[in-house]
Amino acid sequence: MTPISQFGEFGLIRHLTRDLKSAQPSTLYAVGDDAAVLNHEGKRTLVTTDLLLEGIHFNLEYVPLRHLGYKSVAVNVSDICAMNGTPTQITVGLGVSARFGVEDLEEFYAGVRAACEHYNIDIVGGDTCASMNGLTIAITCLGVAEEKDIVYRNGAKVNDLICVTGNLGSAYLGLQLLERELQVFRATQHDNLGKATEHNESIHEKFEGREYLLERQLRPDARVDIIEALRKAGIKPTAMMDVSDGLSSELFHICTQSKVGCDIYEDKLPIDYQAAALAEEMNLNIVTCALNGGEDYELLFTCDIHDYEKLVPLDDVYIIGHVTAAEYESGKSDQPANLRLIPRNGDPMPLTAQGWNAFA
Amino acid sequence: MTPISQFGEFGLIRHLTRDLKSAQPSTLYAVGDDAAVLNHEGKRTLVTTDLLLEGIHFNLEYVPLRHLGYKSVAVNVSDICAMNGTPTQITVGLGVSARFGVEDLEEFYAGVRAACEHYNIDIVGGDTCASMNGLTIAITCLGVAEEKDIVYRNGAKVNDLICVTGNLGSAYLGLQLLERELQVFRATQHDNLGKATEHNESIHEKFEGREYLLERQLRPDARVDIIEALRKAGIKPTAMMDVSDGLSSELFHICTQSKVGCDIYEDKLPIDYQAAALAEEMNLNIVTCALNGGEDYELLFTCDIHDYEKLVPLDDVYIIGHVTAAEYESGKSDQPANLRLIPRNGDPMPLTAQGWNAFA
Repeated sequence: MTPISQFGEFGLIRHLTRDLKSAQPSTLYAVGDDAAVLNHEGKRTLVTTDLLLEGIHFNLEYVPLRHLGYKSVAVNVSDICAMNGTPTQITVGLGVSARFGVEDLEEFYAGVRAACEHYNIDIVGGDTCASMNGLTIAITCLGVAEEKDIVYRNGAKVNDLICVTGNLGSAYLGLQLLERELQVFRATQHDNLGKATEHNESIHEKFEGREYLLERQLRPDARVDIIEALRKAGIKPTAMMDVSDGLSSELFHICTQSKVGCDIYEDKLPIDYQAAALAEEMNLNIVTCALNGGEDYELLFTCDIHDYEKLVPLDDVYIIGHVTAAEYESGKSDQPANLRLIPRNGDPMPLTAQGWNAFA
Repeated sequence: MTPISQFGEFGLIRHLTRDLKSAQPSTLYAVGDDAAVLNHEGKRTLVTTDLLLEGIHFNLEYVPLRHLGYKSVAVNVSDICAMNGTPTQITVGLGVSARFGVEDLEEFYAGVRAACEHYNIDIVGGDTCASMNGLTIAITCLGVAEEKDIVYRNGAKVNDLICVTGNLGSAYLGLQLLERELQVFRATQHDNLGKATEHNESIHEKFEGREYLLERQLRPDARVDIIEALRKAGIKPTAMMDVSDGLSSELFHICTQSKVGCDIYEDKLPIDYQAAALAEEMNLNIVTCALNGGEDYELLFTCDIHDYEKLVPLDDVYIIGHVTAAEYESGKSDQPANLRLIPRNGDPMPLTAQGWNAFA
């Protein structure tokens, strides 16, 4: 392991950002000055930020640093997509404790750079410093959109269709799988998944047939493809979010901000067969996983019912319900009470936004 | 102490950002969606980011949370100033461990909001989450500038004047003072400076006559006033940086990127009398403090010698030397070798960029 002190802060930043080339014409000046200089002329600038902390958002016992770098970028890009925008630049803040070496940061940066290439975005700044404990990742993503194209959370209207992309619950089940195998992992004295699977065939076997779930958890992708497909199809969603905390939680945000209710149909929820099989094996309710599992980074959006014909031909887009008029309980005028799940059999049930309270 | 879990993540963000009003016309949509929406039309967007970690960048044993909030914003604003830009928006990422309560975060946010009011900038997003250890602060600041006004580090030319604002070394000496008194502080079982000085007259006395040094360390201000004054005077610096790591270190950045050398005159270095007196008392060399002490957040800039007449009337701007032609040692073509300090008496001495290697 090469100690980071060998480079020093400036040397390290130079080392990690050497040979960076800009892909975006809007990047006028990237790393190397007090601030980056961007030209978003004629378009709106979008900005979002995420903080990822070791022990809270990720566990390096089974998350390879390269995947973590990729995912850190993807989750921010996903937020720009959820505004119907195009991601353009990121800044990367890193706090690293003494247990990390230069090679570790190179791995992390390799993942960050792979994601930047995939999404066609530029690294334009950052801050790398020592930390007392663990790994801290702070990423800010900028994007652009035409004013008329921006989709907020508050535009859903009664009778709008409610759609999600991909499938739900897979990332959560991938996490359950990793957590279950963590004890076995620990015995192998590995420091990342790659090395562990290399040396331990029995673990490899346990993941066979579940690779998709692992990938959903370890290396999610933002749905820039859907944003492009919607644009080509001439559909502008009325409201949109990415599914990071779980479908129920995101529906609460959209319904609260749009002042509407919703009916979601259980049999319309898109679920992957690997996810269903693992839920069965682990005695988990797959519908609960689909409703409340986080980190899928799929898109949840509402759109006008007149767009139905344009929606149907789209790959990987599923209509799961529709928007209803809001009903409020007395004294709770800020939160609609009628967010409902319509089961295959039986009466409608209220959706509960479990979400994810890291402070609990 | 109100536990943060009582609010949950979304409740907490709502609580801390309630009643936020935007001051910038360029802020179209701030907190509350997947990303903020900004309109920097016709101007360039500047972006800078800083990560501040407990135990590395600040010690809560003597830094009040409100001051820390203010300083976190100021240091980012300072970077935008150093590009000759106008700060407009920030995002605030916070990781907080279980030892912090809602009241603590309110204190921190009060400081953040005070700084935003002072600099006329908007909080447009953020991320607040639990952390395993200590307090993590990730701030990204956006700003705007006309393309023609932007000042990089690489524009210094031979014979340019070298200027700094304010004075140097005061923040470093403020830190030394705080560190020296830390043992006494610890005995008082305080949790912030305000409470400690309230209850302990002897400490209060120790700081008497040194309030300025404490303020420079605990609550620095970015020199937006200088940026404005330069603009009014019709001066565009040829290169500029803010002094965060120490004058020598910043001179190295400017000289390396501009491919020039420099002569700095010891007797021209602006030094506050409180700083000089404390250095004397603590047996520290005040010139070393002025050259290598960090966190002053003053501006260092070079400008054309023809601007001399316009420079002289400016308040709080000091000419400390001039730019010379670069000389390189064989085999080291990336770093000019002739950055020199001209002492009051005696021969020129090479400047050394001690800077601040947090990894050492």
